[in-house]
Amino acid sequence: MPIKLTILGCHSATPRTNSHTTSQFLEVNKHHFLIDCGEGTQVQLRKYKIKFSKIKRIFISHLHGDHFYGLIGLISTFSLLNRETDLHIYGPKGIKEIINLQLKLTKSWIGYNLFFYELESIKSELIFEDDKIEIHTIPLDHRVYTNGFLFKEKIGKRKLNMKAISKIKEIEICDYQNLKNGRDFTKENRELIPNIDLTFDPLSICSYAFCSDTAYKPEITTIIKNVDLLYHESTFLEDKEFLCKVTKHSTAKQAAKIALEANAKKLILGHYSSRYTNLALFKKEAQTIFQNTELAESGKIFEVFHGKGS
Amino acid sequence: MPIKLTILGCHSATPRTNSHTTSQFLEVNKHHFLIDCGEGTQVQLRKYKIKFSKIKRIFISHLHGDHFYGLIGLISTFSLLNRETDLHIYGPKGIKEIINLQLKLTKSWIGYNLFFYELESIKSELIFEDDKIEIHTIPLDHRVYTNGFLFKEKIGKRKLNMKAISKIKEIEICDYQNLKNGRDFTKENRELIPNIDLTFDPLSICSYAFCSDTAYKPEITTIIKNVDLLYHESTFLEDKEFLCKVTKHSTAKQAAKIALEANAKKLILGHYSSRYTNLALFKKEAQTIFQNTELAESGKIFEVFHGKGS
Repeated sequence: MPIKLTILGCHSATPRTNSHTTSQFLEVNKHHFLIDCGEGTQVQLRKYKIKFSKIKRIFISHLHGDHFYGLIGLISTFSLLNRETDLHIYGPKGIKEIINLQLKLTKSWIGYNLFFYELESIKSELIFEDDKIEIHTIPLDHRVYTNGFLFKEKIGKRKLNMKAISKIKEIEICDYQNLKNGRDFTKENRELIPNIDLTFDPLSICSYAFCSDTAYKPEITTIIKNVDLLYHESTFLEDKEFLCKVTKHSTAKQAAKIALEANAKKLILGHYSSRYTNLALFKKEAQTIFQNTELAESGKIFEVFHGKGS
Repeated sequence: MPIKLTILGCHSATPRTNSHTTSQFLEVNKHHFLIDCGEGTQVQLRKYKIKFSKIKRIFISHLHGDHFYGLIGLISTFSLLNRETDLHIYGPKGIKEIINLQLKLTKSWIGYNLFFYELESIKSELIFEDDKIEIHTIPLDHRVYTNGFLFKEKIGKRKLNMKAISKIKEIEICDYQNLKNGRDFTKENRELIPNIDLTFDPLSICSYAFCSDTAYKPEITTIIKNVDLLYHESTFLEDKEFLCKVTKHSTAKQAAKIALEANAKKLILGHYSSRYTNLALFKKEAQTIFQNTELAESGKIFEVFHGKGS
């Protein structure tokens, strides 16, 4: 499948025995990413049998401990496991200094290349792309500089309509690539067959948006418009909305409003405050606004398939 | 009891689901200390229901991740829990810079005083004392600057021999303090009653030595002579002794030799390499040299009582 998201931790503030702080493992079109890395993330990766070596790029939303205190431990463990593959880390300015100081003082010798991409812009930026996917920042509104991340497949090539093609004798296999690229076909008698008569539209692209931590910020909906899967923090329920203003967090209802406005296909809630024991209330509150809502929990997997939502 | 030691983690290198890196909670004479603080220590403290607020002093042996990567998270959690009590941290030079940089970049406001005592000496030092206990460093031999720590009760006052005292009519309650302090008693007829006839020796002092990480270093036995309880790392078994030279670790047998030479009452082994699955072999190997050996394991408690070993 094009997108598979594994929740490693989805609670706020501090790790507890059964409440792990934010981290997610994301597979998009054969790419493997780690998003945020709270303390204990490496243990969660082992628990869910995710191969450490798969992770090539790590995205850190902001420099609050519950989103990155596990990063230095993971980097060290990669080294102990004799990793040789490059590791790319995207996060707020300062992250390189924190990691490098610790590596220096612990006299750690890292046997692989560590590349940092420090983010400072308050506008959405394209921070990675190849022929399959692109990744954009989603500027959020929190107490410290924070970005969400939008992971988007790139539009693929057109699909051959073999039934239609077989009726045109002159089309040979060497023409297929041109047809996939959208070109029309010209017969020897100069008759032009439009590409649309010989191919189908490419598969729809799949996308995932990670938005944590943030106050309610409706401006982001233009960036994440029509996203298939949206993770949006919901630290509080509506009864504690007054706390959102001070702490720059969101309620479940506010997360649902973002999902609705963005025309997301599915909403995942997380980053619950430890004051709540009945998490079902988050889903219930969000569903008053946006029906297709799910709760994040450690080990839960969300998938998105081409041509339909997750 | 004068000494109660709770093992929070005792494995080397990296935390795993059921193998936690080094950390110990130590109670000595109503003092509460944390020794080392690997990633996930705060979760272990919660698991064993140890009140965070009890911890006033933290001792970090060395700046390798498996001994201190949980410290910044614990400091942050103390703050989230609205701690107001001072926290004192003892550790190698550099620890202050690491913690302060992270607090600065995470824009963390700490509502309590954080005092650092950075260690640089390669000789044993007295780093804390009050009327009840004293704490000394134990310079160890590792790849980075490392100290163990010796926790020692101070000798108490002499105990009153009430039977003997009751026979001397002239001794009044106001004289008891002088007797406890070791003074002789002079009767009105100038007859001197030696203190030793009126009091018993004070309770024996109890002591605990933490020695991790280190290569075999017999010189430390003079510092920890006659210690009641000795935790000494044993990363390897004898079959991997050649690795000890490169990594500056010890075998179970070497740990036992230290215990024997120091005339320790009990030896606790720990810091096992993850290559070993049968930990009973560590105990077996050590017991060929030193019989009273136990294995550290998470949640295990070791106690020392006055007048006898643990």
